[in-house]
Amino acid sequence: MMKNEKIPYKTYLNENEMPKAWYNLRADMKQKPAPLLNPGTLQPMKAEELAGVFCEELIAQELDNDTPFFEIPEEILSFYKMYRPSPLVRAYCLEKKLGTPAKIYYKFEGNNTSGSHKLNSAIAQAYYAKKQGLKGVTTETGAGQWGTALSMACSYFGLDCKVYMVKCSYEQKPFRREVMRTYGASVTPSPSMETEVGRKILAEHPNTTGSLGCAISEAVEKAVSSDGYRYVLGSVLNQVLLHQSIIGLETKAAFDKLEVKPDIIIGCAGGGSNLGGLIAPFMGEKLRGEADYRIIAVEPASCPSFTRGVYAYDFCDTGMVCPLAKMYTLGSDFIPSANHAGGLRYHGMSSTLSELYHQGLMEAVSVKQTEVFKAAEYFARVEGILPAPESSHAICAAIDEAVRCRESGEEKNIVFGLTGTGYFDMIAYQKFHDGEMNDYIPTEEELAVYRAKLPKVE
Amino acid sequence: MMKNEKIPYKTYLNENEMPKAWYNLRADMKQKPAPLLNPGTLQPMKAEELAGVFCEELIAQELDNDTPFFEIPEEILSFYKMYRPSPLVRAYCLEKKLGTPAKIYYKFEGNNTSGSHKLNSAIAQAYYAKKQGLKGVTTETGAGQWGTALSMACSYFGLDCKVYMVKCSYEQKPFRREVMRTYGASVTPSPSMETEVGRKILAEHPNTTGSLGCAISEAVEKAVSSDGYRYVLGSVLNQVLLHQSIIGLETKAAFDKLEVKPDIIIGCAGGGSNLGGLIAPFMGEKLRGEADYRIIAVEPASCPSFTRGVYAYDFCDTGMVCPLAKMYTLGSDFIPSANHAGGLRYHGMSSTLSELYHQGLMEAVSVKQTEVFKAAEYFARVEGILPAPESSHAICAAIDEAVRCRESGEEKNIVFGLTGTGYFDMIAYQKFHDGEMNDYIPTEEELAVYRAKLPKVE
Repeated sequence: MMKNEKIPYKTYLNENEMPKAWYNLRADMKQKPAPLLNPGTLQPMKAEELAGVFCEELIAQELDNDTPFFEIPEEILSFYKMYRPSPLVRAYCLEKKLGTPAKIYYKFEGNNTSGSHKLNSAIAQAYYAKKQGLKGVTTETGAGQWGTALSMACSYFGLDCKVYMVKCSYEQKPFRREVMRTYGASVTPSPSMETEVGRKILAEHPNTTGSLGCAISEAVEKAVSSDGYRYVLGSVLNQVLLHQSIIGLETKAAFDKLEVKPDIIIGCAGGGSNLGGLIAPFMGEKLRGEADYRIIAVEPASCPSFTRGVYAYDFCDTGMVCPLAKMYTLGSDFIPSANHAGGLRYHGMSSTLSELYHQGLMEAVSVKQTEVFKAAEYFARVEGILPAPESSHAICAAIDEAVRCRESGEEKNIVFGLTGTGYFDMIAYQKFHDGEMNDYIPTEEELAVYRAKLPKVE
Repeated sequence: MMKNEKIPYKTYLNENEMPKAWYNLRADMKQKPAPLLNPGTLQPMKAEELAGVFCEELIAQELDNDTPFFEIPEEILSFYKMYRPSPLVRAYCLEKKLGTPAKIYYKFEGNNTSGSHKLNSAIAQAYYAKKQGLKGVTTETGAGQWGTALSMACSYFGLDCKVYMVKCSYEQKPFRREVMRTYGASVTPSPSMETEVGRKILAEHPNTTGSLGCAISEAVEKAVSSDGYRYVLGSVLNQVLLHQSIIGLETKAAFDKLEVKPDIIIGCAGGGSNLGGLIAPFMGEKLRGEADYRIIAVEPASCPSFTRGVYAYDFCDTGMVCPLAKMYTLGSDFIPSANHAGGLRYHGMSSTLSELYHQGLMEAVSVKQTEVFKAAEYFARVEGILPAPESSHAICAAIDEAVRCRESGEEKNIVFGLTGTGYFDMIAYQKFHDGEMNDYIPTEEELAVYRAKLPKVE
């Protein structure tokens, strides 16, 4: 008790306490995540098959299930210094307001212009692209955080950046687009007429508002058909979880410094970039039998890949130009209802996290949209930070756990990932304030339609 | 040289190094700022005359020209911990890009949801209103930072918050309005039909897009005509400069810790809240003859109160309901051209800063709008932070000074106030990108019209 009372509002690591290497969670997994498959041969993808799409060193990171640590290059450490370490915040005001004996912490990743944790991997991917001598990179973005982060990273290294932005976000978030433009990126609403796959989708569904899966297809096509370009992705992939491990490593170092052991670790989950990063070193201890933690993934009830998806091989994109990945998936054609605001709208989930979930090493819950925004507003008023809708899924679950502690009297240490800020999500907040937001959840019948289209892989 | 090379990217003060008292610059001024005058009697305003408009303790702070330090109440220190200390950042990337031998630093005040330094005074004013047992406060806001900050502070203390927002900002920045709403504030576009002064102005100028001076009049009228309400203001006043001294005190403490002495201190200036706060302890040393610094105020060429205004008594508001203040002013009817984006649009300037400028203790420069946005974009790409248009005035001047150092070979230490972020200013950025922004500057003839209307005070 005494110790906890001395805990500062915010804990920052000193420069000499900062992690110097990323941690590769897969090295400690006995059952490795299932490999990416070539959709033609159904054989595991080899590095040379991926080389037309991805940067060389990133492919090496993607396929390496054994090396536990990857040294962070000096140039990336320099860039990290511009916005890292991020603070581990003790949510004293929230605890008081909830009247809970639980101790609540959050790792705040929103203190950079991209507004989220996405910059951690964007700068790494841009670095390796530059090192390979490329002209530029292509990518997709949904809510816009990833595209913003990548445009910042590319601007830093002088790389061209071509972003396909899911059409409904492009229209709902013109300011995100303008931020990317400020950093020199070009932004195209997806589906577009610029690519074959875009033209095909528009011909079939002229009124589509787009999807991440479709924007991925366009970005990949553009990369492989342009000289000196490669495709980069902000979530799902093993390499992304590797780079994002900086979040968890800092969090763990801060807790060690405070001599606190978290009991419950909570992260929102779309493709898994933040969750995989936040939990990495803790899950590592769990896998090695050194410690135990409750780890909870929180996803939108309107896009419930963990809680209502199936664990199977599926396409990563709508155009089926990417390798097959084994993951919890709703089917590559699944698009959350138009009323769904914010990100966390990907149909699948990181293969690594899927395997860990499948093994029962973590839990998953889904939360309804209006509950998420209630939690977001509550948090804003109490803790001062206006959270991103994505992050607010984790806030919602953390509040639920803290309320349970109030009922049981338990003084648990709860930590959640506050992945970003909601400054570019005010249209969603406005809908919430005006009562125009609903809690539509896909029916079993709807999900069955997409499930039936899963590729057959033995 | 060796010492400078070891300077970290960001310097944060430890909790025990944080200022515990605000510094009142006026205590060290031999020639005090001119007092507020009662517009009827032209006699200095007494505390009891101000008591219907302002909170009691804030009036005491406003009128106190002698007490050098005011202890910061514990509740405010607690709130400050949620987002302070703010970092003093060494702009290594900017220096390198400019190829300058100058060392550039900035004090970054944007890491809170209000997006600017305004929160420093908002929380203080809300605290004293709460302590006095009030129901709520009224205020005006232009670009929206102050209104956002006040709504956050009022939410924290459970006070009602009524904001009159300059109509053109209300329309151009719907998201700022929505943030205030998230924090529970009510927001009315000004001029409105809610107040007598608003109705009068609308009758005379039905198409007006509003002004700060007009919104102030409405907020004051609302406060004095509502039971349990007082009016609060985010700039210009002595009390605001007092609260904002936290910026300068932290900056000075960080420099002392680094064993660096700044040569040039640069701040943007609208009403003077950031500038007055940033320079306070440095100007104090200068007034006491302990050190010398070049201090530069940077204002928009489209609203040039320091560089083209006159030093005279003037109304603080359009409706002439406030006391008279002696200040550099363009005349209380002055409104910057509609093309002017962002804040720094007040017709006058803090009395304290005006007196210091009049005594030759600081310099002032004006910069054109497109130069400001050029500097903003340059800075964003190099340093990663997307700056507010207001802050970018200081960036622009800092870059100019650093370029001069490149030419002269001098290794000066330059520090500027990066007051906030530009996330809610993307419409202005968009205009800049699309070439729709101009550099309109008021003509001498235009300024003469407003100047002729200054009140006659002997």
